Amino acid sequence: MRDPQYDILFEPVKIGPVTARNRFFQVPHCNGMGYRDPSGEAYMRRVKAEGGWAVVCTEQVEIHPTSDIGPFIELRLWDDQDLPALTRISEKIHEGGSLAGIELAHNGLNSPNLISRETPLGPQNLPVVSWNYDPVQARAMTKADIADLRHWHKEAVRRSLKAEYDIVYVYAGHAIGGLHHFLSRRYNNRTDEYGGSLTNRVRLLREILEDSREVADGKAAVACRISVDELLGDEGITRSEIEDVIGLLGETPDLWDFVLGSWEDDSVTSRFGPEAEQEPYVRGLKQLTTKPVVGVGRFTSPDTMLHQVKSGILDFIGAARPSIADPYLPRKIEEGNLEDIRECIGCNICVSGDFTMSPIRCTQNPTMGEEFRRGWHPERIKVRSSESNVLVVGAGPAGLEAARALGQRGYTVSLAEASRQLGGRVTRESKLPGLSAWIRVVDYRQQQLRKLSNVDVFMESEMTADDVIDNDFHHVVVATGSSWRRDGVGRWHTHPVPVDDHADVLTPDDVMAGLRPAGNKVVLFDDDHYYLGAVVAELLAKEGFDVTLITPAAHVSQWTTNTMEVVRIRKRIIEAGVHVQVNRAVTSVTPKGVRTVCAFTGDEQFVDADGVVLVTARLPHDGLFHDLQSRESEWAAADLRSVRGIGDAWAPSTIAAAVWSGHRYAEELDEPPAPGPVAFRREVTGLSIEPVSTLTIPPFATAQN
Amino acid sequence: MRDPQYDILFEPVKIGPVTARNRFFQVPHCNGMGYRDPSGEAYMRRVKAEGGWAVVCTEQVEIHPTSDIGPFIELRLWDDQDLPALTRISEKIHEGGSLAGIELAHNGLNSPNLISRETPLGPQNLPVVSWNYDPVQARAMTKADIADLRHWHKEAVRRSLKAEYDIVYVYAGHAIGGLHHFLSRRYNNRTDEYGGSLTNRVRLLREILEDSREVADGKAAVACRISVDELLGDEGITRSEIEDVIGLLGETPDLWDFVLGSWEDDSVTSRFGPEAEQEPYVRGLKQLTTKPVVGVGRFTSPDTMLHQVKSGILDFIGAARPSIADPYLPRKIEEGNLEDIRECIGCNICVSGDFTMSPIRCTQNPTMGEEFRRGWHPERIKVRSSESNVLVVGAGPAGLEAARALGQRGYTVSLAEASRQLGGRVTRESKLPGLSAWIRVVDYRQQQLRKLSNVDVFMESEMTADDVIDNDFHHVVVATGSSWRRDGVGRWHTHPVPVDDHADVLTPDDVMAGLRPAGNKVVLFDDDHYYLGAVVAELLAKEGFDVTLITPAAHVSQWTTNTMEVVRIRKRIIEAGVHVQVNRAVTSVTPKGVRTVCAFTGDEQFVDADGVVLVTARLPHDGLFHDLQSRESEWAAADLRSVRGIGDAWAPSTIAAAVWSGHRYAEELDEPPAPGPVAFRREVTGLSIEPVSTLTIPPFATAQN
Repeated sequence: MRDPQYDILFEPVKIGPVTARNRFFQVPHCNGMGYRDPSGEAYMRRVKAEGGWAVVCTEQVEIHPTSDIGPFIELRLWDDQDLPALTRISEKIHEGGSLAGIELAHNGLNSPNLISRETPLGPQNLPVVSWNYDPVQARAMTKADIADLRHWHKEAVRRSLKAEYDIVYVYAGHAIGGLHHFLSRRYNNRTDEYGGSLTNRVRLLREILEDSREVADGKAAVACRISVDELLGDEGITRSEIEDVIGLLGETPDLWDFVLGSWEDDSVTSRFGPEAEQEPYVRGLKQLTTKPVVGVGRFTSPDTMLHQVKSGILDFIGAARPSIADPYLPRKIEEGNLEDIRECIGCNICVSGDFTMSPIRCTQNPTMGEEFRRGWHPERIKVRSSESNVLVVGAGPAGLEAARALGQRGYTVSLAEASRQLGGRVTRESKLPGLSAWIRVVDYRQQQLRKLSNVDVFMESEMTADDVIDNDFHHVVVATGSSWRRDGVGRWHTHPVPVDDHADVLTPDDVMAGLRPAGNKVVLFDDDHYYLGAVVAELLAKEGFDVTLITPAAHVSQWTTNTMEVVRIRKRIIEAGVHVQVNRAVTSVTPKGVRTVCAFTGDEQFVDADGVVLVTARLPHDGLFHDLQSRESEWAAADLRSVRGIGDAWAPSTIAAAVWSGHRYAEELDEPPAPGPVAFRREVTGLSIEPVSTLTIPPFATAQN
Repeated sequence: MRDPQYDILFEPVKIGPVTARNRFFQVPHCNGMGYRDPSGEAYMRRVKAEGGWAVVCTEQVEIHPTSDIGPFIELRLWDDQDLPALTRISEKIHEGGSLAGIELAHNGLNSPNLISRETPLGPQNLPVVSWNYDPVQARAMTKADIADLRHWHKEAVRRSLKAEYDIVYVYAGHAIGGLHHFLSRRYNNRTDEYGGSLTNRVRLLREILEDSREVADGKAAVACRISVDELLGDEGITRSEIEDVIGLLGETPDLWDFVLGSWEDDSVTSRFGPEAEQEPYVRGLKQLTTKPVVGVGRFTSPDTMLHQVKSGILDFIGAARPSIADPYLPRKIEEGNLEDIRECIGCNICVSGDFTMSPIRCTQNPTMGEEFRRGWHPERIKVRSSESNVLVVGAGPAGLEAARALGQRGYTVSLAEASRQLGGRVTRESKLPGLSAWIRVVDYRQQQLRKLSNVDVFMESEMTADDVIDNDFHHVVVATGSSWRRDGVGRWHTHPVPVDDHADVLTPDDVMAGLRPAGNKVVLFDDDHYYLGAVVAELLAKEGFDVTLITPAAHVSQWTTNTMEVVRIRKRIIEAGVHVQVNRAVTSVTPKGVRTVCAFTGDEQFVDADGVVLVTARLPHDGLFHDLQSRESEWAAADLRSVRGIGDAWAPSTIAAAVWSGHRYAEELDEPPAPGPVAFRREVTGLSIEPVSTLTIPPFATAQN
């Protein structure tokens, strides 16, 4: 039963010809499945619809081969061949009771067209603004090109209706949708009626909005997604220009979807921006139009949502990441189960799915991306298949999730934690600069465990193989985590680095445990390349150490290109006073410093340091697992049926992977193994039928000469 | 009729139970199509079989979900669901008359398993050795894992037989195949019978080779692809170890396929390595086994090939890149048409297809990757559809290919070139350090044009709109190239950079035309990010200029990560004495130097310089095109039916794109337009059938508590 103060969030809202059942709106977001895994995407969206998001949208959908943003795998609506996939997605959204939105996109300067090989189209002749410096230039669109684009967009709207979408987007945001480039002085230097004054720069957007309404013809709503400020001052789109745009076009679409700047600006991690960060940029725009307005802000707090609506900032609570972490977020508010909300931690591991072309994953929600292929669900799980009881050893992210999900299945679970705290690495890492929101991984699971009377948690309970065998457990799962290596082994070095016995060497575990280098001058060698090296460097620099971060990669925290943090991380550590040496590896450690080598030339240097922090790789804590394996002959007598390892104790990886691993264990316990080598359903490319004349190579002529 | 000296290249050679019709062997190579575009790959391979390669292989094929190397798109043989695609490829190879080889791969440490989410498997606990620093560690394989791997590989061989492959590979090369990691001391620190001595490190390879022969059971040959030297001295695999491996296993496979080091070491561009670079590493190994031996070396010269065989280095002339540039290379030697060979220029744009997950392209062969989807063929083309005559304006890469292919179709063609030289930018760029092989793009086309009596070439013939309209051309295609911008506009700046009137500013065109900065101290601003900036910096440094290369990217020539050149380029320019400032942009230019800005913090600096070279973006030479467009009313009277632009004159891009653009023009002239918005055939994901019990989400239980 929901708190009546939240009633306003559950009011239906009209969007042109359609009506949303409440104010929760899953805005378009990428997911790494797209055209490759259409049913995977369809079931993922369906779960969100079930969870109460009144509108559930696709990610951007390429409307034409001149808008080919490969290697990224989004949806396509190039022609009718794409209709079955798009229709399956809308069907699944409708099954969940929601309106289906489709984000039509012509990416203009953002599409290098590496797959289609068509010439990119932009407002002027410019290199493409793709993610990878592709050596391709766009061509300034002629009037004929503009007419073509309008035609393609109309065709895309027509196909969207065929595929039964209720809301059709026109995408002018994030410097991704090509209409953004026309709007922005940064990209538009045209001297014709599509360039110059704001009225001219907005002309193509207006035409396409009007075209879309004409084709939609009252059968679907038309939404306009637009960046409200490019954060470039007068070099780009300004908030005051957007006010003028709404003055010109405010009543043209049926809905406004406001985003901020580029995608990197709009989807900032919790390390770099708070909840509702967009509010000052969006506030006041709603008052310029009678049409409903949606916006985002990594909203996970019902009170913040309420504030957005009550103070007239937004009509719809837009969400991408919070809807990934908790597809049932609206329903939990509706049913008064606020304590069950699985809050987004703002880590952007979801975004990495898009950048690595792999199905979207989530640190908080291990079922994300697994709805179709493994049949997992964020709220429901199959009942236990036996009366077995299970011992989970270790209450880090893997163990907590395993215990929670096993408990949800109905198993009798003992969760044994060696320390005085739940959460393992999450608890430790969340105390580091910028990572405090990550504790939500623990908070959510701790809260759920409290409700499960069949799960007992034992603190300060280190377990040995004897303890396991002497007690009555049918299944044991070892989730004892990992330690950072002290020997420098990682990517660059696969054998231990020479370290002088008198050198002052610390690992991230030491630093998190409160140890500090004895002297002031510290070298941190980052051969891990995700977030931790830079976070530890920042911590030490803020404490007054003189820190030099050395990494063999070209970037500090290179892998965070995939979470869109790499620029912000570098800026922050530079500003914290950290010295940076990229493209170099530490090759030996002495009490006076480190020897380093250039990744290109092999040229050597010596860097003075009083102490060294090695952030390279980890070793799993798999001792208990192996002890138990070596005593398999004793299992039967102890009625012990299985021993398994999960999370970092099995193979160190991300927190998301640890949570997923714990969840998988719980899903698969007592279940029959997959019938074949592939543990999940998948869809593969359908082969063209042969011989069919239109699908075979035409007969060849021989050369004339 | 072939020269009898080449007879030896056309001897049949037995490979275990199968026989190759000659010594030409297309070794496995990636192509950016793989599981996404199986028919695209099948037809590409078929054309090579037609062209005389006696063996045509797939790229690496993932044999299990624990070997998931996404985001790269190779083939999969995870289970029977993949058989139709794999079978189509072998069928097409057989249609071309060749043996079909399949490169089975379990990638071990090289597979981050981002799609499957399975734990990677390696000889020891180590971070994955993937291309992108993925935050995933592999787990040391247990005996049970090794037994599993052997079982999976046997299953993959069984499936390969079902799919009718004639040669089944075991992949232990390039630090990509997982067996390489077991072989190499760099990755294998095991203390059991699979680590330590060479006999132990080679054990898994031996077992899998024996397993494969057992399953193949005389129905297919078994090949072993192995790195003959890891180029790491005693830290990795050495040549002498490989001699011992062949001593142990020499007679176990039916064929040895020798590669060198990692993929980057084996597929070096012409800028960094000559033809037959592998010879000293491979020489002498053949003498250690009675089994036939294949190896590569970017072979395009028949005499070099002859030498490989006659001097007992190789039995088979292996090729990946030369077979991409000219799928008909063997047939041309066989038929005595050596002058028709389209020689690989060694630019590795083909490799970029794999790294950008887009269908393979080739600078020399514009039909590569287009065999299925557009029905293009490297040797044959449809006959002309009319008696039209065509004017091609500009004899750069686009114009030359357009004229050649139009001539091949039988059109009457006039090729008008303003300068005294054919080749345009290719001729100019091939004079720069390291790029001399690129002139082959011109040489091949010049040679072909000589044979086409219906193509007339006019030198020093600049064309105006009047010239066109006053003469009798039915179709005109403008291929007049582009110029490098002098205003700094590119990726970082979309508006001109402030440049003082007295500043000494050059473009790459100036430098190629022989101009040089007046003073010694030069800043080169590279906002292009492909090869040219570093090449010009190298040239000037070698001439004695004091050069500082400034780029906003993290790497010099950042995009050459996709051609596997980025490390070699950096090393070369460092050694040439070029100073490098990455992550900075030039923001203004004065006679005394440049102002720069940090890409992360916005922090400004001034760099002293006497002169500046701007390598940012290009402007198309589209004046003639627009002049003619503006006079469309006069066309009918002049019997002018179409005016088109191609290559850099249409939109500046790579040389490969220019050649492709010229070819496309020729293919499409007078042909009916594509029936829909997509100008090519494509295959899309087949949707799972619903409702089928195994393909729907199982019923959910509600939680127990």
